[in-house]
Amino acid sequence: MIKSFIEVNEESHFPIQNLPYGIFRTKSNEKSRVGVAIGEYVLDLSVLDDHGFFDETLIKNERVFHEGSLNKFMSLGKETWSKVRQIIQHLLREDVPTLRDHKTLRNEALHHQSEIELLLPVEIGDYTDFYASKEHATNVGIMFRGKENALMPNWTHIPVGYHGRSSSIVLSGTDIYRPQGQTKSPTADKPEFGPCRQLDFELEMGCFIGPGNEHGNPILVENAEDHIFGLVLVNDWSARDIQSWEYQPLGPFLAKNFATSISPWVVPLEALEPFRIAGPQQDPEPLPYLQSATPASYDINLEVSLKGKNMSQPQTIAKSNYRHLYWSMAQQIAHHTITGCNLNPGDLLASGTISGPEKESRGSLLELAWRGKEPIEFVNGETRVWLEDEDELIITGWCQGENYRIGFGEVTGRILPARNLNIKAKEALFNGNN
Amino acid sequence: MIKSFIEVNEESHFPIQNLPYGIFRTKSNEKSRVGVAIGEYVLDLSVLDDHGFFDETLIKNERVFHEGSLNKFMSLGKETWSKVRQIIQHLLREDVPTLRDHKTLRNEALHHQSEIELLLPVEIGDYTDFYASKEHATNVGIMFRGKENALMPNWTHIPVGYHGRSSSIVLSGTDIYRPQGQTKSPTADKPEFGPCRQLDFELEMGCFIGPGNEHGNPILVENAEDHIFGLVLVNDWSARDIQSWEYQPLGPFLAKNFATSISPWVVPLEALEPFRIAGPQQDPEPLPYLQSATPASYDINLEVSLKGKNMSQPQTIAKSNYRHLYWSMAQQIAHHTITGCNLNPGDLLASGTISGPEKESRGSLLELAWRGKEPIEFVNGETRVWLEDEDELIITGWCQGENYRIGFGEVTGRILPARNLNIKAKEALFNGNN
Repeated sequence: MIKSFIEVNEESHFPIQNLPYGIFRTKSNEKSRVGVAIGEYVLDLSVLDDHGFFDETLIKNERVFHEGSLNKFMSLGKETWSKVRQIIQHLLREDVPTLRDHKTLRNEALHHQSEIELLLPVEIGDYTDFYASKEHATNVGIMFRGKENALMPNWTHIPVGYHGRSSSIVLSGTDIYRPQGQTKSPTADKPEFGPCRQLDFELEMGCFIGPGNEHGNPILVENAEDHIFGLVLVNDWSARDIQSWEYQPLGPFLAKNFATSISPWVVPLEALEPFRIAGPQQDPEPLPYLQSATPASYDINLEVSLKGKNMSQPQTIAKSNYRHLYWSMAQQIAHHTITGCNLNPGDLLASGTISGPEKESRGSLLELAWRGKEPIEFVNGETRVWLEDEDELIITGWCQGENYRIGFGEVTGRILPARNLNIKAKEALFNGNN
Repeated sequence: MIKSFIEVNEESHFPIQNLPYGIFRTKSNEKSRVGVAIGEYVLDLSVLDDHGFFDETLIKNERVFHEGSLNKFMSLGKETWSKVRQIIQHLLREDVPTLRDHKTLRNEALHHQSEIELLLPVEIGDYTDFYASKEHATNVGIMFRGKENALMPNWTHIPVGYHGRSSSIVLSGTDIYRPQGQTKSPTADKPEFGPCRQLDFELEMGCFIGPGNEHGNPILVENAEDHIFGLVLVNDWSARDIQSWEYQPLGPFLAKNFATSISPWVVPLEALEPFRIAGPQQDPEPLPYLQSATPASYDINLEVSLKGKNMSQPQTIAKSNYRHLYWSMAQQIAHHTITGCNLNPGDLLASGTISGPEKESRGSLLELAWRGKEPIEFVNGETRVWLEDEDELIITGWCQGENYRIGFGEVTGRILPARNLNIKAKEALFNGNN
């Protein structure tokens, strides 16, 4: 197994086998640029580019690693991604002196992760959220529509998805204000306005689209993986009380638009290759435009932890795995574009909540606490059915190799109390007028 | 009434009272830039800017009129939009010699519309489609869910909307391939794949967002109009057979993602001011965060025509009016952002299909031909229940003043036959394997 001259311990998410891409800046250079995580360091690709290491691979004038987003690099396609990855991997090897023994270059190109600021890695054009876990769709269906109508008849034929809101996708670590909105309890006469009372997370992963397709020209399932640049962790924050009142007939809107958090490091699809496995058996067989002979899932461990303001440390509340997803990314891309819809570099396709068959593998509080009926217990005696103010939610994920991990880092977010909007004052005014 | 030195007839959509913004280029200058329509001409704002006409209004270095989209100009806000409009209107007056008598400048700054190419006016970040016509929501509800469940209980409380696909928004005049996808007839055992058989248009209008809001900080309904730059015509092409099979529970996805067409000229909200009227009475009274004392609708005539390949001219199939919409743009913006969702300059908020109370005022074939049951008859003897290949669909709209019109031009699109995707070959292959 190859190793880097940079020390990386066995639990690190960022060994030389991973090399995920991110956007960062430093105090000494405030320009946003492309970096790669290695152990506790970030390798500055803009510096390597300035030194000519990519001259034979990239068009010099494009300077994709000097960009403030990965979009241009992602648009270049699989062959270029692979060549760039080879160059970086080569330069970081313990038996390659080029960078290892060049002290000035090393000082210029390597920054400790504690000294950098990470930024949103991608300028996300369109964001699509799928619903690819059969267990999740079934659980939600039971709770929202009853056991008889749990899984819609289309679900086993279609990788069901919907368009999400891209403007409110934020980087891991961004605080989230508790959303406010309209809700109606089933027993109330009329809806009311106020802070969300059923605030939830959703454990998801998402893939970023590389080249994409021309409008009108679908991506066939057999070519779909060529368009996947890499994956991140996604927390699709959800306001369940807003959702249940608003979602019919056009789907979730405000329940999801207030924030979606993603992890900062985009793990290349190539790094996941050793962990490729077959997904669940698909029965009934999908229509030919969704059929592919290639195993198209990945063995990625996922964990969710929660830390309340009175807890000394985060406590794990769910353990799941990417392999539980019924529909593959390739099938999602083929389906998404079959009408001629165009995907662009930087588009994000999220998986939907990744729930598995066991109770502990459920990927949302809605499911874990069964819509409030089965509170989650914490070691300090607290319980949760929904997220409370000041709760911090942490999602992590990794592929376990022999003595190494291909990790995704974390996506974290803390809930801030709802903002005071002074709508109460207005309410009084209007009521006075009536 | 003020007039321009450029001749504009009474039926023209672009008198000096309108002055809509667009993006164009010419053969002699291929750089995309900002123009304003006046009669049969386009006034090149980049030229006016070069000559210093906006020096007191705009920051010189920003050069917003040299941009290939309106986004930067839209981000500057209402006060700047209004000042720029005054300058342009002043320069075009018949009694102002500055431009009128300056032949060189006139030749440089005015292009006949036949000599320019119009481009998509805005780089659209996020696209949201509402469902604001009560008549449309009721009609569709009856057809999809039956009379008992026609209007969902949330509809009169919430400006229902959903996130649309922005990548496939195209300029008027772009041909549209008939989409392909998965459908299932209610009587069939299983779904099938093929070209859409129930292809439809939707008559809509959309507003482009100006400054927008910071993430986490809602736009209150009383400030919402400050964020509306202007309006365009929208045709939200729809595949009804795909829609009815896919839309539960997360809403329309492929049924809408293949294309949305918009008209090229963005009419400033200020130009519509003389046509401001109250919208329909809202009963029940909306919650305070959606209440506004200002009349918030507009009297905009809308017409839809269809021209089949064997028709000598387009035939009007629907006449509607923007005033029929139940929910206002201000209410939509307040609702959209109440959770903290951020709107950005260039975001598009479409109205949803604008159907009125009469049969002829229905804004889609679904409603006009009542899901195939009441075919529309054409003078050449043809009928339509859905769009056929080679059909061209034309939407136009205008406010009727005394001896002038504030017009939106047109949004047009022609249906091309579905592309051959060679999925049949694949089907044979897979069937052979089974």
